Amino acid sequence: MTSVLKIKPKENCRWDLVSLGEVMLRLDPGEGRISTTRNFHVWEGGGEYNVARGLKRCFGMDTAIVTALADNSVGRLVQDLIYQGGVDQSYIRWVESDGIGRTVRNGLNFTERGFGVRAALGCSDRGHTAVSQLKPGDINWERIFGGEGARWFHTGGIFCALSETTPLVAIEAMQAAKQQGTIVSYDLNYRDSLWKSIGGKARALEVNRELASLVDVMLGNEEDFTACLGFDVEGLDKDHSRLEAENFHRMIESARQHFPNFTVVATTLRNAKTATVNDWGAVCYAEGEFRWR
Amino acid sequence: MTSVLKIKPKENCRWDLVSLGEVMLRLDPGEGRISTTRNFHVWEGGGEYNVARGLKRCFGMDTAIVTALADNSVGRLVQDLIYQGGVDQSYIRWVESDGIGRTVRNGLNFTERGFGVRAALGCSDRGHTAVSQLKPGDINWERIFGGEGARWFHTGGIFCALSETTPLVAIEAMQAAKQQGTIVSYDLNYRDSLWKSIGGKARALEVNRELASLVDVMLGNEEDFTACLGFDVEGLDKDHSRLEAENFHRMIESARQHFPNFTVVATTLRNAKTATVNDWGAVCYAEGEFRWR
Amino acid sequence: MTSVLKIKPKENCRWDLVSLGEVMLRLDPGEGRISTTRNFHVWEGGGEYNVARGLKRCFGMDTAIVTALADNSVGRLVQDLIYQGGVDQSYIRWVESDGIGRTVRNGLNFTERGFGVRAALGCSDRGHTAVSQLKPGDINWERIFGGEGARWFHTGGIFCALSETTPLVAIEAMQAAKQQGTIVSYDLNYRDSLWKSIGGKARALEVNRELASLVDVMLGNEEDFTACLGFDVEGLDKDHSRLEAENFHRMIESARQHFPNFTVVATTLRNAKTATVNDWGAVCYAEGEFRWR
Amino acid sequence: MTSVLKIKPKENCRWDLVSLGEVMLRLDPGEGRISTTRNFHVWEGGGEYNVARGLKRCFGMDTAIVTALADNSVGRLVQDLIYQGGVDQSYIRWVESDGIGRTVRNGLNFTERGFGVRAALGCSDRGHTAVSQLKPGDINWERIFGGEGARWFHTGGIFCALSETTPLVAIEAMQAAKQQGTIVSYDLNYRDSLWKSIGGKARALEVNRELASLVDVMLGNEEDFTACLGFDVEGLDKDHSRLEAENFHRMIESARQHFPNFTVVATTLRNAKTATVNDWGAVCYAEGEFRWR
Amino acid sequence: MTSVLKIKPKENCRWDLVSLGEVMLRLDPGEGRISTTRNFHVWEGGGEYNVARGLKRCFGMDTAIVTALADNSVGRLVQDLIYQGGVDQSYIRWVESDGIGRTVRNGLNFTERGFGVRAALGCSDRGHTAVSQLKPGDINWERIFGGEGARWFHTGGIFCALSETTPLVAIEAMQAAKQQGTIVSYDLNYRDSLWKSIGGKARALEVNRELASLVDVMLGNEEDFTACLGFDVEGLDKDHSRLEAENFHRMIESARQHFPNFTVVATTLRNAKTATVNDWGAVCYAEGEFRWR
Amino acid sequence: MTSVLKIKPKENCRWDLVSLGEVMLRLDPGEGRISTTRNFHVWEGGGEYNVARGLKRCFGMDTAIVTALADNSVGRLVQDLIYQGGVDQSYIRWVESDGIGRTVRNGLNFTERGFGVRAALGCSDRGHTAVSQLKPGDINWERIFGGEGARWFHTGGIFCALSETTPLVAIEAMQAAKQQGTIVSYDLNYRDSLWKSIGGKARALEVNRELASLVDVMLGNEEDFTACLGFDVEGLDKDHSRLEAENFHRMIESARQHFPNFTVVATTLRNAKTATVNDWGAVCYAEGEFRWR
Repeated sequence: MTSVLKIKPKENCRWDLVSLGEVMLRLDPGEGRISTTRNFHVWEGGGEYNVARGLKRCFGMDTAIVTALADNSVGRLVQDLIYQGGVDQSYIRWVESDGIGRTVRNGLNFTERGFGVRAALGCSDRGHTAVSQLKPGDINWERIFGGEGARWFHTGGIFCALSETTPLVAIEAMQAAKQQGTIVSYDLNYRDSLWKSIGGKARALEVNRELASLVDVMLGNEEDFTACLGFDVEGLDKDHSRLEAENFHRMIESARQHFPNFTVVATTLRNAKTATVNDWGAVCYAEGEFRWR
Repeated sequence: MTSVLKIKPKENCRWDLVSLGEVMLRLDPGEGRISTTRNFHVWEGGGEYNVARGLKRCFGMDTAIVTALADNSVGRLVQDLIYQGGVDQSYIRWVESDGIGRTVRNGLNFTERGFGVRAALGCSDRGHTAVSQLKPGDINWERIFGGEGARWFHTGGIFCALSETTPLVAIEAMQAAKQQGTIVSYDLNYRDSLWKSIGGKARALEVNRELASLVDVMLGNEEDFTACLGFDVEGLDKDHSRLEAENFHRMIESARQHFPNFTVVATTLRNAKTATVNDWGAVCYAEGEFRWR
Repeated sequence: MTSVLKIKPKENCRWDLVSLGEVMLRLDPGEGRISTTRNFHVWEGGGEYNVARGLKRCFGMDTAIVTALADNSVGRLVQDLIYQGGVDQSYIRWVESDGIGRTVRNGLNFTERGFGVRAALGCSDRGHTAVSQLKPGDINWERIFGGEGARWFHTGGIFCALSETTPLVAIEAMQAAKQQGTIVSYDLNYRDSLWKSIGGKARALEVNRELASLVDVMLGNEEDFTACLGFDVEGLDKDHSRLEAENFHRMIESARQHFPNFTVVATTLRNAKTATVNDWGAVCYAEGEFRWR
Repeated sequence: MTSVLKIKPKENCRWDLVSLGEVMLRLDPGEGRISTTRNFHVWEGGGEYNVARGLKRCFGMDTAIVTALADNSVGRLVQDLIYQGGVDQSYIRWVESDGIGRTVRNGLNFTERGFGVRAALGCSDRGHTAVSQLKPGDINWERIFGGEGARWFHTGGIFCALSETTPLVAIEAMQAAKQQGTIVSYDLNYRDSLWKSIGGKARALEVNRELASLVDVMLGNEEDFTACLGFDVEGLDKDHSRLEAENFHRMIESARQHFPNFTVVATTLRNAKTATVNDWGAVCYAEGEFRWR
Repeated sequence: MTSVLKIKPKENCRWDLVSLGEVMLRLDPGEGRISTTRNFHVWEGGGEYNVARGLKRCFGMDTAIVTALADNSVGRLVQDLIYQGGVDQSYIRWVESDGIGRTVRNGLNFTERGFGVRAALGCSDRGHTAVSQLKPGDINWERIFGGEGARWFHTGGIFCALSETTPLVAIEAMQAAKQQGTIVSYDLNYRDSLWKSIGGKARALEVNRELASLVDVMLGNEEDFTACLGFDVEGLDKDHSRLEAENFHRMIESARQHFPNFTVVATTLRNAKTATVNDWGAVCYAEGEFRWR
Repeated sequence: MTSVLKIKPKENCRWDLVSLGEVMLRLDPGEGRISTTRNFHVWEGGGEYNVARGLKRCFGMDTAIVTALADNSVGRLVQDLIYQGGVDQSYIRWVESDGIGRTVRNGLNFTERGFGVRAALGCSDRGHTAVSQLKPGDINWERIFGGEGARWFHTGGIFCALSETTPLVAIEAMQAAKQQGTIVSYDLNYRDSLWKSIGGKARALEVNRELASLVDVMLGNEEDFTACLGFDVEGLDKDHSRLEAENFHRMIESARQHFPNFTVVATTLRNAKTATVNDWGAVCYAEGEFRWR
C-alpha cells in the first residue's frame, strides 16, 4: 500500500501522525455494572486519539494529539493518562475552568462490559467540553504541518459532531495538511446521539460530505457511508449485523465516483456472537482491489 | 430545645425530615490523588442530602430527599447509593437523558484528602444538572407537607445557588411547609464559585435575604452570615480561620433584629491544624442563650 | 396470566409483594476459592428475599421482607445491604445479641464460582439464626395484609426448613394473606441438609403438604415435587439433570388433582454444561396450558 | 529469667511451645466499618494461638496448636492461614460438618479499627464451635508431652470460657504437661460475654482458681486477677485505664501467697490516648523483683 | 502401580516426598499485562517444588523442599508463601544477602495470562540466585534419606540447568536416595533459555543422560526426550502441538532399551485451542502397558 | 540564584534538564509488609531520574533520562511508568535480554513504609542491570548537549557506584556538558552497600573526588561530604540525625577551598521523629550566603 499513498519521509517530519479529537476519561466498573458499582478503574480514550496511541505504543511511532481540556484535576488526570499513552501533548489547549463545570468541562465516558445475552453499555457525559468549543484559529496548524512536519493527519466524524465549530476546525486542519503534502484520513464513525441536537442526519450529511472531499483514506462501514455520505446500499440487512462483500464493493465504487480523492477505503468488521464472544475482521480497498481478512 | 421549636408529633407525619437539594456522585481516589489515580471509589453526597442521610442511618428517622436526576446509568448509580443511604426516593424527579450530557447531566464531585501541609482538594463537575433545572410547579409540595406530613423541612444555600430557578423552588417549598406547621431549616453554605456566573455576591445577598424571612433554624458561620445576609462582623480575622465567641454573639443579635423568625441559629466549627488533624466544635443559639462545645 | 390470578389493585395496597424468609450475608472470594482466599466481597441473599429484591430493583415494585436479624455489626451490615436492595425493612425483627453467637446469630453463606470441570461450591453457616427462632405471634400479619395491604405474599421451603417453628409462621402468614385476598406463592426448594436433623424427608413431606393446600402459585422442579410433596415421576433420569416435558406435564396434572388450589405451577431450568457455561430455561403451567422457554 | 524457670532443653523436645485454644477466622473491613463495608480481608487469630504464631514467625521456634475445626471450606481457610502462620497442625481435630452450622461451626471474629474518638469494635460469632466441644480424652497429651516432648505449654481463660468441657481439657493438658516437666503458662484474659451464659462470674472464679494451682507463669492485668482469681486491688480506678505500680505489686504479693506456684507473673499495658494512638508497656514479676517497660 | 514401584512404608519415613529445586516469587498482573500493570499479585512456584506443594495440599502428604534462598525481604516473602503451601522448610539453605543482589539473589518469575489469540507470557529473572549456587556438600542428604527417611525423591531438568553445580547436587541427592531405597523421579522439562549460556544442547544432553541412569520414574514429553536424552521420534509434527500415541510408544520403548531403570514413564498433554481454552490429558507407561486419559 | 549560575536560554535548548541514572521498578506492599504481602503496587524511581520527573510533572519542564534497560516485559513496564512520568525516553538504551536474567537485568526496589517505632525498609535487587553495564561511547553526548542542547545536566553518586564503568560514563557526560556550557549538578548520595564489593570507601573517595572537579552544583549532607569527598566535620553527632548550621558552614567552606568550582551547595534535611512523622528542611549555599528553611 506504500506505493498507493505518497507518504512524506520521516526525516523531514517530527510526527508520524497527528490526530485531532476528544480525549475522554473512561470510567470502568470492571466485572461489575455502572449502576451498582462502588469502584471505577479509569483509562483515557477517544476514537481519533486511540489511533495516535496505538501507533505510538504498538508500533513505536511519534504521534501527537490536538485537543482541548478544562484545566482542573480531572483534566490533569487525563493528562497523566495521555503521558502514559506516550502521545505528545504539546498541542493540547488548556482552558480555564470555572470550578463547577458550567462553562467548560472534560468529557467522561462510563462504560461497562456485556455478559452473555446482556449487551455492553456506555453512558457518555461529554456536553460542554473544552474540545467541543475549539474553533478555527485556535490551533497553529502552520507550525504542525509546515514547521515541524507531519506524515499523516487523522480526524473523524465523532470530533466533527461535537459542536457547530468542530467541523470548521477539521476543515482548517485538513486544508493545512494537504498544502504540506500530509496524508489525510477520516473515520466516519456516525453517532446519532451526537447529531440529534445540532441538526440531525441532514446536518451530518452536509458536514461529512464537505469534509470528505479533502480525505485520502476514508474509514467507515456501510452504515457510516449511508448516514454520513448518503450512499444507499441495496440488500443491506436491517440491523447491519453482517457486511456482505458484494454490497460493500458496489458502495465503494459508487463512493469513489463522487469522491475520486478516496485513495484507500477500509473498515473493521465485528460480528458479536454474544457479548462475551466476537469475531473480528477487516476489509480494505486500494487501487481497485479489495482485501478481506 | 424541644420547647423552643414546636415540632409536629410523629403520629401525624410520614416524614421526620424532608430535604431539598442536589445528590452528587462523589469520586474518591482513596490514598492517592485525583490527577494521578487509576481508581475511584464512589459515594453519594450533597450538603442538604447529607442531613437526611445522617438522620436516617445514625438516628433511625424517616427522611426523604427531593431532587432531580438525569435518567442514565450514572443517575441509576446515584439511586443505588441513595437506597443504601436509606433515604426515601419517592420525590426524585427523573429527567430523560439526551445520551451525551448536553441538555441534562448528573452532578459529579471529585474529592481528595489532604496530607500534612497539602490541603484537601475538590473538583466539582455539576453544571447543567437535572436538579439545577428544577422549577416551581415541578414538585407536589402539597402532597408532601399536607398529605403525608413532614415534621421538618431542610434546604440550603448550595441548592439555591445552582440556577435562577432553584431559589424559586425553595421559596415554594418553604411556604408550603410553613402553611402546614413544618419547621424550616436552612444552611447558608456560601460558595463563591456557584454564584459567580449567576449574579455574584449581589444576587446571593438578594436571594438569601428573601429566603431567610421564612426560616426557623438558620445554620451558618460568620462568613456565611456576611456573604449571604450582609451582616458585618467587627474584628473578624481575614481568613475566617477562627470564630470568636464575642463577635459571633453580636452578629447573631444583629441578625435576630432583622429576622426575628430565627428561633435557633447554629454552626459547626472546624479548626484545621494540618490537613490530617482537625479540631471540631459547634455553637448553638436558642432562646437568648448560647451553647458552645 | 393476569386473568388467571385475581390480584388486588395497587391502589388499595402499600405492597406489591411481601416476602418471608432468611437474609444471609453472602461472602464471595471472587476469582479465588474460599479455602485459600484472603478477601471476601459481601452481598446479601436468600431464596425468598431475592424475589422481593428482584421485583424492586428490576421492575420498580414496592416490596418488603419479613425476617429476623441478630442486632450486632453483622446484622447491621445485612441491613445496609438490604437498604441498597431497596426492599422495605419495617418488618425486620431485631433480636438482642449475646455478643458471642451462642443464643442467636445471623446466617452466613460462603459461596465460590466453579471453573471448567470444578463445580461451584457453597458453605452455609446458618444454625441458631434469629430467623430460625421466629414463632407464631411474632409478626403482626394483620397489619401487613389487612392494614397496609399486600397484593402478593411469597415464602418457600428453605424458610420452612430452618426450624420446628418456621413452618408454623408460614402457615400463620398464608392464612392471614388468604383472608385478605392476597395471592400466595411458595417455592418448594428442597434442601436435604436443612431437613436432615429436624425430621428428614418424612417431616419435609408432612410440612410441605400441609402448606401446599394454601398455595396459589407453586414453584418447583420435579425433584422438589417428589421430595416435598411425594409425587413420583416416571422415567425421570437419576440425577435430574434434564427435565422432560412429558413427565413434567403428567406430574403437574397429578399434583393438581391433589391440590386443585394450584392455579399456576412454574419452574426455572438450568442445564449446566460446565461450571462456566449454562443454558437457562423456564416452564409455566396456567389454566391447563404449558409454556416453555 | 532462664534461671528462674527450669525449661527442658530443646534436644529432647520436638516443640518449643504447644498452645491450646481457639483459632478464629478474623474478618477485617480495612479502613471501613463492618456495618457498611463491601469487602473483608481475612486473617486467623485467637488469644492462645497468637502466642504460638508469634514465637514461630518472630523468633523461629517450633510451635504447635491444639484445637478443633469443623471440616468445611471455612475450616480449610483457617487451615490455610495457620499454614501461613507456620504453626504445626498435627493436633488439630477435624470434626465432620453438618453442612449448615447447626451442630458444629468454626469461630468467626469481625473486627474494625477505631478512629479518633470512635473506639475499635469487635463482633465475635463463636457459638457452637468445634473447639468449644472438645472434651477430656479427645487429645493424646501423652504423645505430645511424653512422646514428642514440649518445653512449654500455654493456654488461657478464653479457651476455658468456651464451654463446660474446655476447662476440663485444660486441666487434663496441664497435668500431663507438669508430669513431663513442661512449663505451664496461662493468660487469664477475662471476658464477661463468654462467661455470662455458662455460670457467670461465680463460675469464672471457680474454674480459674482451680486451674491457677497448676500454673508456673501467670499472665493478666489487675482486672483479670480480680475477676478470675478474686483478688481485690485497693485504689484501682474504676475503668482500669491505668495500672499503678504500687497496687499491682501488692496484688501480686497477695496472689503469690495463695498460689506459691506462680514463678512468674506478667502483663502488657496499653494506654489508649485515642483509638489511633496508644502507648504500650509491660511489667513482669519474677523471683521477687518487678521489671517495668 | 503400587505393585510396580517398591515404595517404602510411611511408618519408617518422615517424608512422603522430598523435592529439590528452585522456588521463585511469581508476580502476576491478574487480568492485565506485565508491561502496563500497576499491581502484581504474588505466589510462589517452581517446577520441582510444585510437586511437593500439590502432594501436601491436595493429598495431605508430608513433603519437604530442598532449596536455597537469599536472606532478604523477598526471600522471607517466599518463605511466607511456602509456609502457606504447607511444605516443610527445614532444608532451605539461607544465604547471606549483599543488600543489592550482585552476589546472590532470589528468583523472580513475572507471568501473564493469554487471552484469545494472544499467548500467555512469562518473563523470568532468575540469574545469580542462591539456589543456582548450591553445590555438592551443602545439603545433609544422609540425614534426609537415612536419618528421617523419605519415600520418594523428586527433582528435574530445570534445577539441573540452573548452573554448573546444580546437576552435581542432583546426582549426589539421587545416589543418597537410591542407597536408602527411596524412589527417584525426574521431570526432564527442557528449557532452551537456561542451557544456552552454560553449554547449550550438547551440555543438556550430557547432563541429563548421566542423571537418567539413576531415575525410576521419568517424566517428559517427546520434545523433552529428544532434547534431553537424544531420542529421535519419527513423524513428530514440527511444533510438537500434538502427541501421537504410536510415536510416543516407540520412543518409550527405545528409551527403555537404553535406560532399563525407567520403571515408569509419564507426561501430561496440553492441547491449547486458544489462550483461554485448553484440553488436558496425560499418558503413563508402566510394566509394558500404556494408559491414556 | 539565576544570577549565580549562567544557565543557557531555553530557546537554544530542547532540554531543560537531562539526567543520567538508573530507573528501577519499585514494588510497594502498601499498608502491609514485603515479607508477608500478597500484592505489590508498582512505581518507577531512581535518585537521578526523580529529579527529571519532578521538574517535568511539578514544573512543566522538558526533561530527558539517559539510562539503559533490558528489553523484556519488566523493562517495558518501566518504560510505561516513565511515559506516565512524562520524561523523554529517546536516550534509553535497550539491551537484548537473555530471557532469564543471567547476563542482563532490570533493577528492582522493594520498599515498605515504617510505622511508629518500626523503621521503613528497602530491599534492592539491582545487580547485573543493563544500566550498570553502560560504558563510555554508548551514549551520543554530542547530540544531546551540542545538537539538541540542554540547559542542565544531572547525575549522582548512586549511578557512579553501580559498576566500574558508570563513573567513566559520568565523566564523559560531564565533560561534554561543560564544553557546551551546560550546568552540571551532582548528588553525592553515598550508599555503603553499593561500594562494598567494588572497592569500598577508598574507591568511593577516589571516584567522587575526580567527578567533583567537574561539578557546578553539588548536593549532599555532611555524611555524604565525609564519605565521598573526605571532608571531616567536627562535632557531628554520631548517627547524623541532626545537622547543625555551624558545622555545615565550616564544611562547605573547606570544600570550596578544594573545589572552587562548586558555585552552589545544597542539601535537604529530614528529621524523622517516628517512622510516621518527619520534619523536613533544606539548606542552600550560593555566593557566600547560606539560606535555611
